[in-house]
Amino acid sequence: MPVSPLAPAGFPQLPEIGGATFAATAAGVKYEGRKDVMLAVLTAGTSIAGVFTRSATRAAPVLDCQHKLSGDSNAPAAILVNAGNANAFTGKNGDGSVAALTAAVETTTGVPQSRVFTASTGVIGEPLPHDRITSKIATLHADQAPAAIADAAEAIMTTDTFAKGASAEVSINGQTVKIAGIAKGSGMIAPDMATMLVFIFTDAQIAQDDLQNVLSKLNTKTFNCITVDSDTSTSDTLLVAATGASGVDVTGNVAFDDALHNVMRDLAHQVVRDGEGATKFVEVQVTGAQSDTDARKVAMAIANSPLVKTAIAGEDANWGRVVMAVGKSGAAADRDRLSIRFGDITVAENGWRAPDYSEEAASIYMKNAELTLGVDLGIGSGESTVWTCDLTHGYITINADYRS
Amino acid sequence: MPVSPLAPAGFPQLPEIGGATFAATAAGVKYEGRKDVMLAVLTAGTSIAGVFTRSATRAAPVLDCQHKLSGDSNAPAAILVNAGNANAFTGKNGDGSVAALTAAVETTTGVPQSRVFTASTGVIGEPLPHDRITSKIATLHADQAPAAIADAAEAIMTTDTFAKGASAEVSINGQTVKIAGIAKGSGMIAPDMATMLVFIFTDAQIAQDDLQNVLSKLNTKTFNCITVDSDTSTSDTLLVAATGASGVDVTGNVAFDDALHNVMRDLAHQVVRDGEGATKFVEVQVTGAQSDTDARKVAMAIANSPLVKTAIAGEDANWGRVVMAVGKSGAAADRDRLSIRFGDITVAENGWRAPDYSEEAASIYMKNAELTLGVDLGIGSGESTVWTCDLTHGYITINADYRS
Repeated sequence: MPVSPLAPAGFPQLPEIGGATFAATAAGVKYEGRKDVMLAVLTAGTSIAGVFTRSATRAAPVLDCQHKLSGDSNAPAAILVNAGNANAFTGKNGDGSVAALTAAVETTTGVPQSRVFTASTGVIGEPLPHDRITSKIATLHADQAPAAIADAAEAIMTTDTFAKGASAEVSINGQTVKIAGIAKGSGMIAPDMATMLVFIFTDAQIAQDDLQNVLSKLNTKTFNCITVDSDTSTSDTLLVAATGASGVDVTGNVAFDDALHNVMRDLAHQVVRDGEGATKFVEVQVTGAQSDTDARKVAMAIANSPLVKTAIAGEDANWGRVVMAVGKSGAAADRDRLSIRFGDITVAENGWRAPDYSEEAASIYMKNAELTLGVDLGIGSGESTVWTCDLTHGYITINADYRS
Repeated sequence: MPVSPLAPAGFPQLPEIGGATFAATAAGVKYEGRKDVMLAVLTAGTSIAGVFTRSATRAAPVLDCQHKLSGDSNAPAAILVNAGNANAFTGKNGDGSVAALTAAVETTTGVPQSRVFTASTGVIGEPLPHDRITSKIATLHADQAPAAIADAAEAIMTTDTFAKGASAEVSINGQTVKIAGIAKGSGMIAPDMATMLVFIFTDAQIAQDDLQNVLSKLNTKTFNCITVDSDTSTSDTLLVAATGASGVDVTGNVAFDDALHNVMRDLAHQVVRDGEGATKFVEVQVTGAQSDTDARKVAMAIANSPLVKTAIAGEDANWGRVVMAVGKSGAAADRDRLSIRFGDITVAENGWRAPDYSEEAASIYMKNAELTLGVDLGIGSGESTVWTCDLTHGYITINADYRS
């Protein structure tokens, strides 16, 4: 597949994070001739927080991660990730594979099994050939390096057309705290949460429960606000590891929270920009709803509507389909108070086409690769912003052939 | 567009319904060179029942129909329908168009305005050029004929690739009651209810409230169980007119209810068979759920999943995506009790690929144009059956270009 037209110019230069090292290699889990497994090793005392898919058919590694996340520990930690096979819906064998992987990491690296987190992405329902991965743990251990995070970003890709990274540095009391994150998409992207794997590393010092609180709060404004196709993975995993190597305590620090927020939003946007077949990046802004919850319902109904998304693909300013999506969302709405904007162009207001609406101007606007679609319900102060992409022939091509 | 490969062999021979006459003509509302408006005139005392979209942005004719439906009347009735413009999100002007249309029918035919029901389908947000329709009412009145229901079925089509009709005859105490119905789809098809217009006529005798009860009950098992793309129209309208011309009282008659059920299910299936771009007709059967409501959640999550629908389009027995859809549905599920069938082939059971599963056999099955996808949750007795189609390049082609 060609690289998404919405991709950034290139993979960013990510800062090295004290206390975190990385390695990636080709284990041949499914793909041939590319890196498909990565191992991150984290210094003793690292705090690990996470958010996960809420799917009722969660994959074995997700259940294992959820079980292991809680409280502080003085032990080192590790994150082992493979692409090509999700180890999902693999029954008791799936649990066995996770146990085999984490035991192998303990044996080779000394990180206790209870602090080894795994994630797997790829096909569902196939047994994970975990021997192919365990046979590479020694190599992954020997190759550990602070700068290898870029290799890790490549190793976790599936149908992604570009590797995703983002970083921030924040100065706190004259000292610098660094954050670097990587992510993969790009099918099954939907709220609750977006289907993907995200790993963020920082040298900040913060207790596990404080880090978890910050992460959960920021997640509702970032990864839970993106959707490509409304489908939700069995494997969504977002882990944040704070090594403490900077010696800077960031507990309750707004600047740190903002920096982490920026990294998370940046990665979330990159996931949408690499949505399968995407040619347009769309921000949906809903205001004036009866509540934030209602605003989110409307925003997601618009962002997930196949008819809205195909109209955007066709560069058609078909705001009637936006009206349809508002109507079906289940949120309180008054047809005669509704207004709709495409960019700065008001296309509809007061339940009717805007008097000075120009279809020509709207059509020109729709040719942009980055679009803003605004809906004001005019009945309250609830608001929500979500991000999505268009629905194109590329999505069909990728997904009608992905597994066979 | 070519006719759907899932279309019936041809339009069925529909019986004439005593007390009901029809006419259709070309009014040029939007389309050129084809019939786009139809008028049905119904004898005095006809009972009219209806179900409608629950969209919060319902179109003007829907609101008008809902207002007019209630109780019995000794007056005649009429149904006027146009294709090409939905008269939706047209503000106060939309209400004005409905008033103009219904007044014109009263003037020409003598049917009181309070008994003239209208429906409009097509583009949202454009003013309805209702003069083009009112100028044809005299012709539509003059042409009324019992056999013209087939013309009416053609006149209401939008992106439909075939006209949809179904009928039944039922013998009650030695007398025959007839039912004939027509429908149009085929985009924005989703529950609550499917996006479409359906008009069913019978010579049965039944009070309005009894007819409404039967219709509402049957609707939950037919039109509310189909989905093409999860989008819900602002204009969904299903009207049933019982003229009473047979003189046979069908109140509480199970044979009549069954016959009406069959006609409704047949038309609902035809709508799916003409889903935009459809190449596969899929029945999703969910059993063993904690409740019928949960079963429906699972069935609709599967039927609406873009990843499931594209896999079906690709003839890929990708049951992992079915697991994903079960997991995201929000229904109670136990991964280790779940089983999945494609036709008669058990692909997964007990949270794991079935021991004797053959991907080859499943792949051969997926080549069929009509597929059954069964999920048993294994935790209760709730069940639900819904119908959908695949998601193909054809859907994208139609919807990225429909309006421009």
